[in-house]
Amino acid sequence: MSVPISGKVIKRLTLYHHILSDCLLKAKEYISSQQIAELLKIDDSQVRKDIALCAASGKTNVGYNAPELKKAIEQLLGFQAQKAAFILGAGNLGSALAKHADFADYGLDIAALFDIDPAKIDRLINGKKIYPLSELHHVATHEQLVNKRRVEIAILTVPASAAQKSAELLVQAQIKYIWNFTPTILSVPDSVRVCNENLVGNFLEFTNN
Amino acid sequence: MSVPISGKVIKRLTLYHHILSDCLLKAKEYISSQQIAELLKIDDSQVRKDIALCAASGKTNVGYNAPELKKAIEQLLGFQAQKAAFILGAGNLGSALAKHADFADYGLDIAALFDIDPAKIDRLINGKKIYPLSELHHVATHEQLVNKRRVEIAILTVPASAAQKSAELLVQAQIKYIWNFTPTILSVPDSVRVCNENLVGNFLEFTNN
Repeated sequence: MSVPISGKVIKRLTLYHHILSDCLLKAKEYISSQQIAELLKIDDSQVRKDIALCAASGKTNVGYNAPELKKAIEQLLGFQAQKAAFILGAGNLGSALAKHADFADYGLDIAALFDIDPAKIDRLINGKKIYPLSELHHVATHEQLVNKRRVEIAILTVPASAAQKSAELLVQAQIKYIWNFTPTILSVPDSVRVCNENLVGNFLEFTNN
Repeated sequence: MSVPISGKVIKRLTLYHHILSDCLLKAKEYISSQQIAELLKIDDSQVRKDIALCAASGKTNVGYNAPELKKAIEQLLGFQAQKAAFILGAGNLGSALAKHADFADYGLDIAALFDIDPAKIDRLINGKKIYPLSELHHVATHEQLVNKRRVEIAILTVPASAAQKSAELLVQAQIKYIWNFTPTILSVPDSVRVCNENLVGNFLEFTNN
């Protein structure tokens, strides 16, 4: 991405993306900025301004072409190249994220899941295999040597008690970004970036406003 | 809550709460603002300022009493009274949220889950029963008449194709807040507030910065 885009704009654009996906489901080819604005209860001019960032333009009296605009948002916000991620913890949350359809749209590929429960090993979730956590380093090396890609993103959904230990394994496996869904503050080297996904914080903010 | 607290402060306070929970797990009784600041890579003075909102004070050279500060944050951010919520969709994500330990700390009780899959009906998740979606109105009425509480919050984790229909059932059941985890923009009356939980947006913001 060449121009930095603010967090608020990114979030609105992903919401427009949801609306456009819904248009495609309903075989609706065009949508206007007014229709998008009404659904989100925001201002029409804001929608047009955000969409202008994608260099997409609407047609008078018709609106935006939904499949084209959807693609344009994916290109603007998505990764320049396809990126791969590991999921640590194949419980309910890890499984839900492995099935998340939107990731693929933005160029994020789940390379593999990891767990310590022997009953889960070798199962497939959404076509992705679950490996023993002890094989993390091995799978990362295999991705690099055989699939010619370095997996730099990890999604952490293990129990809180296993979070710090898992983060240390991720550091050893040269992961650069940890998306942390555990309620644990991880201690990692400065070279590794952690995004704490704070569901309770989001919820409290919502109900307190 | 008497004083409005900004979203950013709420999120930081919930992160301090995570750290304090971890202290309790490790039987660590005191923690200083410097230690909290270091873990989160933020400024020490910010931590002290946020914590002052809880009317909690630390002891010189010792820091804050972890169990007391944890409780103080829960009281500041939590609901004045216990609140109840329904979860619609007992798939992986709904199940993960039903098991979320932090909700109870902040006074949110999951009253029941709902699904349309006959194989899931009557099962328990974390002690909470799964009902057929068709019984939503009935269960809501029962909560009001028998348990003397009005369930006003719903967490929506159904497939995108079922999201709008589910939202309409929620409106009929007099739900006031919908926490929407589906990638669908819901159309509901103005009296109902929707919080779109935008996981992909959060993630894109993280990796693009």
